[in-house]
Amino acid sequence: MAGNTFGKLLKLTTFGESHGEALGGIIDGFPAGITIDFEAINNDLRRRKPGQSSIVTQRKEEDEVQFLSGIFEGKSTGTPIGFLIANTNHKSGDYSEIKKTYRPSHADYVYEQKYGIRDYRGGGRSSARETVSRVVAGALAKQIVPNIKFTAFVSAVGEISLDKKYQDLDFSIIEDNVVRCPDSEKAKQMEQFIKAVKKSGDTIGGIITCVIQNVPIGLGEPVFDKLHADLGKAMLSINAVKGFEFGGGFESARMRGSEHNDLFNEDGTTKTNFSGGIQGGISNGMDIYFNVAFKPVATLLQKQDVLTNQGEIIELQGKGRHDPCVVPRAVPIVEAMAALVIADSFMLNKIFK
Amino acid sequence: MAGNTFGKLLKLTTFGESHGEALGGIIDGFPAGITIDFEAINNDLRRRKPGQSSIVTQRKEEDEVQFLSGIFEGKSTGTPIGFLIANTNHKSGDYSEIKKTYRPSHADYVYEQKYGIRDYRGGGRSSARETVSRVVAGALAKQIVPNIKFTAFVSAVGEISLDKKYQDLDFSIIEDNVVRCPDSEKAKQMEQFIKAVKKSGDTIGGIITCVIQNVPIGLGEPVFDKLHADLGKAMLSINAVKGFEFGGGFESARMRGSEHNDLFNEDGTTKTNFSGGIQGGISNGMDIYFNVAFKPVATLLQKQDVLTNQGEIIELQGKGRHDPCVVPRAVPIVEAMAALVIADSFMLNKIFK
Amino acid sequence: MAGNTFGKLLKLTTFGESHGEALGGIIDGFPAGITIDFEAINNDLRRRKPGQSSIVTQRKEEDEVQFLSGIFEGKSTGTPIGFLIANTNHKSGDYSEIKKTYRPSHADYVYEQKYGIRDYRGGGRSSARETVSRVVAGALAKQIVPNIKFTAFVSAVGEISLDKKYQDLDFSIIEDNVVRCPDSEKAKQMEQFIKAVKKSGDTIGGIITCVIQNVPIGLGEPVFDKLHADLGKAMLSINAVKGFEFGGGFESARMRGSEHNDLFNEDGTTKTNFSGGIQGGISNGMDIYFNVAFKPVATLLQKQDVLTNQGEIIELQGKGRHDPCVVPRAVPIVEAMAALVIADSFMLNKIFK
Amino acid sequence: MAGNTFGKLLKLTTFGESHGEALGGIIDGFPAGITIDFEAINNDLRRRKPGQSSIVTQRKEEDEVQFLSGIFEGKSTGTPIGFLIANTNHKSGDYSEIKKTYRPSHADYVYEQKYGIRDYRGGGRSSARETVSRVVAGALAKQIVPNIKFTAFVSAVGEISLDKKYQDLDFSIIEDNVVRCPDSEKAKQMEQFIKAVKKSGDTIGGIITCVIQNVPIGLGEPVFDKLHADLGKAMLSINAVKGFEFGGGFESARMRGSEHNDLFNEDGTTKTNFSGGIQGGISNGMDIYFNVAFKPVATLLQKQDVLTNQGEIIELQGKGRHDPCVVPRAVPIVEAMAALVIADSFMLNKIFK
Repeated sequence: MAGNTFGKLLKLTTFGESHGEALGGIIDGFPAGITIDFEAINNDLRRRKPGQSSIVTQRKEEDEVQFLSGIFEGKSTGTPIGFLIANTNHKSGDYSEIKKTYRPSHADYVYEQKYGIRDYRGGGRSSARETVSRVVAGALAKQIVPNIKFTAFVSAVGEISLDKKYQDLDFSIIEDNVVRCPDSEKAKQMEQFIKAVKKSGDTIGGIITCVIQNVPIGLGEPVFDKLHADLGKAMLSINAVKGFEFGGGFESARMRGSEHNDLFNEDGTTKTNFSGGIQGGISNGMDIYFNVAFKPVATLLQKQDVLTNQGEIIELQGKGRHDPCVVPRAVPIVEAMAALVIADSFMLNKIFK
Repeated sequence: MAGNTFGKLLKLTTFGESHGEALGGIIDGFPAGITIDFEAINNDLRRRKPGQSSIVTQRKEEDEVQFLSGIFEGKSTGTPIGFLIANTNHKSGDYSEIKKTYRPSHADYVYEQKYGIRDYRGGGRSSARETVSRVVAGALAKQIVPNIKFTAFVSAVGEISLDKKYQDLDFSIIEDNVVRCPDSEKAKQMEQFIKAVKKSGDTIGGIITCVIQNVPIGLGEPVFDKLHADLGKAMLSINAVKGFEFGGGFESARMRGSEHNDLFNEDGTTKTNFSGGIQGGISNGMDIYFNVAFKPVATLLQKQDVLTNQGEIIELQGKGRHDPCVVPRAVPIVEAMAALVIADSFMLNKIFK
Repeated sequence: MAGNTFGKLLKLTTFGESHGEALGGIIDGFPAGITIDFEAINNDLRRRKPGQSSIVTQRKEEDEVQFLSGIFEGKSTGTPIGFLIANTNHKSGDYSEIKKTYRPSHADYVYEQKYGIRDYRGGGRSSARETVSRVVAGALAKQIVPNIKFTAFVSAVGEISLDKKYQDLDFSIIEDNVVRCPDSEKAKQMEQFIKAVKKSGDTIGGIITCVIQNVPIGLGEPVFDKLHADLGKAMLSINAVKGFEFGGGFESARMRGSEHNDLFNEDGTTKTNFSGGIQGGISNGMDIYFNVAFKPVATLLQKQDVLTNQGEIIELQGKGRHDPCVVPRAVPIVEAMAALVIADSFMLNKIFK
Repeated sequence: MAGNTFGKLLKLTTFGESHGEALGGIIDGFPAGITIDFEAINNDLRRRKPGQSSIVTQRKEEDEVQFLSGIFEGKSTGTPIGFLIANTNHKSGDYSEIKKTYRPSHADYVYEQKYGIRDYRGGGRSSARETVSRVVAGALAKQIVPNIKFTAFVSAVGEISLDKKYQDLDFSIIEDNVVRCPDSEKAKQMEQFIKAVKKSGDTIGGIITCVIQNVPIGLGEPVFDKLHADLGKAMLSINAVKGFEFGGGFESARMRGSEHNDLFNEDGTTKTNFSGGIQGGISNGMDIYFNVAFKPVATLLQKQDVLTNQGEIIELQGKGRHDPCVVPRAVPIVEAMAALVIADSFMLNKIFK
């Protein structure tokens, strides 16, 4: 396997399987002399944690991060930050069934084909539990660029979606509801809907919108590493993500240039922002905003046909504690990946300007 | 500037400005011993070339590629392939106006802010002319994986979009119409629409769909470098792209798990393919398919407000030879970037299995 | 800080300070399906460990490695291997003196200048304790290429050096003496000499020779990543290393082409091996051999002038448990770095041939 | 083939075979706004050029560099600098002999084994002609750090070597003699010796010393990417190099700590400089100096046994225009590689401090 490192100058490398000893990572390139806000890190971990509310999985994972290096007397020293999150909740369960079967729309089958071996316990490396390391790193990345504000929220669950623009929403209420939606009416509908879906043993997809404010002009490298290309890759690397659009997004494809062009004000800001804060791959100082589409969770609490390693189709009853809808818990993950990209671009931009 | 290299093992590094001496690149990591099909490369260049039809820009660019190394007696030697495309069409025009102004939704302003200097002639490095090097490299990448079939086509222009699934389309007619749409009725409508838009001095967005067939199981690295994350980054790095979705895409966000899960057949193939040929970041042998949204071209043949480097807003009349709609010419670019990602993954997969 | 990752496909990223919680690393790119020989890893750790004999430091470090991921039921799964070595021996000592002073020929001063902050306890990240992670990774790397034999040994301590060619030495006795020298007479002299140097509160430099046997033809990339350039960088990245030469080495500079050229046998082997097993950056199947020069340890058990952070020179009495000569314990480190380079090249060579 | 890119932020990628169309490269990461001194580039090319004097090869290569991008109105724009050097001198010679034979101590045999194919004309990619691109890039790199002074010179040819320390030499006379040695007496001896060696159809090795002055404190990354490890790799990547040592070098291995430690002055400089300007991988502001050993050129103007691709040993008479001693022409190459490493470290250091 390759590709367990993310970033150019601010580099996060992660390890860990769902039911192994621990998950964790190393952040190389973190600048020296930053006073670490541990509470902010713990807060983002709490937001990602299972068992927060009735609409997310009831698994108990402590998700306590332990820092092993790179921080001395409360400050970053510039050396790599090693950290781990112990897997305290892995039971020595009965894996005889899962060991021999490939669940639909999971990575079981392709892992076995690609590696000839897999840690089948709880999905192994393909488990979304892997994102806990991203949240730790993202929470640290935010501290490199304290003036930049990252706000992600749920903008759609199934057919229920926000009908307001992000500018008209009250971000301060996002954490007040279990869905993490900045429209309390919609939040209630979404919550009810997720509960109903859960009751039927089914799952549902959703969309997260992320807004990045107060971004300096000049972040991003204008050819292959366009700022939105790096953001897109970051989002598409999150489990269950199926699509990414920024600024006008897919709607831009239906528009004319005369509508879509963002006319300048005299100070270099623009009157509209279909560009989504990025021109030619470079941040232009306007808000960056994008949408990330998540598919419904593949693990159902229903009977489902699965493939065995003997090439047979058998019926298997899904069980366990799983999320009926992934988006509420994915909000801090989207922010974390956005922060990693922006902090990295910020550091790179110090050189080439 | 950083980020002029794309790929992990098959690495394309490009250079060149719109009106400089030449554009070109170096492909490192191209395997030895492949008999190069030069006609295939020229064909892809022809498809990207300006002046092919009445709905694309009438600029004349020869776009003849010259190979400088890495090929000996018709075969690749394994050494880096250096190539260039001379800029034969750059006129010593009058740049006094463009030099001082920043066009809306172009990269003029951010380049100047980021670098303090820019080659203002024809957009410099931010010009889509840069993609000519990608097409050369992509055409070579296809030859590394000759059994894999890359097919991109226009699936929407403004509000006009295909209503058939890709499986029901006749790919053999894509190159028979100037729009590159595999539905001749829709192609005609699109062509008429683009002509009308052009006549009004305006531009229009569109969507390209790409289908990759006959992909072996196992391509892609399952954490940060998921196959679809790399494809997404590749597409988002193309000029004017605003969104990327694969498989079920944004529609997946509205679906339930019981609908969206792709049940297995006994041979490991799946009955449906909402996954878009990729599970957990790894190809599963089914068709890979994705959509790429392009915004309308920012250069209008109308009067438009622009910003000057003195901080004034003035009116400027757009002129020159520009595409009213970028998607017909972007079809080979989408294929090229897809081929670069797939060939790279293919090579990487030789090791880690 | 950057540069805590080593390798192209087999990537080792390390973290950890001398007196922090733990040291450790992540190995990304380790192939799947290899049955891990844990005893071999522990053996290499034992060889590097302090307190093995009277001529090395008497510090007690347990150096027990804990694997956190990537290994399942005794086999590698292809996922990243996370590991750590807890720092069990760090005493809450009195650091008030060292905190304010910069020791000569240590990294204290440059760390403070570069980062504005340093973990002064035991040298922090600049401590050779960092190499423990390299030994773990190197021991794993050897298991990727089990047919290739890595043998490092001490060939000089101060003025005492081997006068035989490596072909005339008995590698089987290397571990029989505390110096790790394959000539028992010389080993005794070296041991006596080190003891005498130690008694005087001084330290002494030395040379390690490494021989790599049974290397397949074709490893190495012939331009910037020549096999010997990668080996050289690997060796020069080890603490206290001042020089690297391979094959004829510095002696080649005094030779004529007619002496130095390695004439072929009919089977492609060569009659002589001044090339050191590498031609044009590519292994040619002959033994690879090289020398690595280590400076004397900078920490003396004598009084020495040091610089304070107030810009004063004061006298400081060196104390503690330190190596009088680093080469006996560095033998497994040299092997480890050699194994990382060779295994990485071996993997890369699978693709480009 | 991989590894045709050198550098982390300042990245040089090269292409080109000895007798192909052209050699050249792309420099990505070159900062914007630098007024390019073309004369300085041409001067370094002239120093590397064949045919400068009677002791170097009499081949005529124009070595004129053509810049294709990245420079506008005399200044760098920040975009990648593409450049090429046409191969004007390649004759359509008779290659029937060389095609079938592998010369001793050349890369012919290993290329054929590794790639299954090779451009046999003049050594192809393994020719030292490849270094022409390095000289162009190095001359540009020097302009990023104009205050840092790079001085390389010949310090030994065969048994004739300088007996003075570099501090006692007059660098201003280096270019006054054909050997590029800053001791006119020794220079004469060396010149006579090279002529005698040449007359006998033989070749001779040598050593180049490089001194880098006025380096700021803090360059280099202290673990795997120690400044001297990167310099070492850079030097070892030059054709014919067999060894690298910096500061005390191999001599350090014979010294005691009490002799070798560099005691501080109150201003942070040191009284001695056995460290060679680098502590713990980080520049300390003192002069950086190192030696690079070159083997004798493998091409002799004598009869020599060669291997054929039929597995036979036959006698071949060496002919053509070749250097009897490579070091005089390698002086600007050593400087170029040093400048690439230092400028790269300089840029990286802007971020992590």
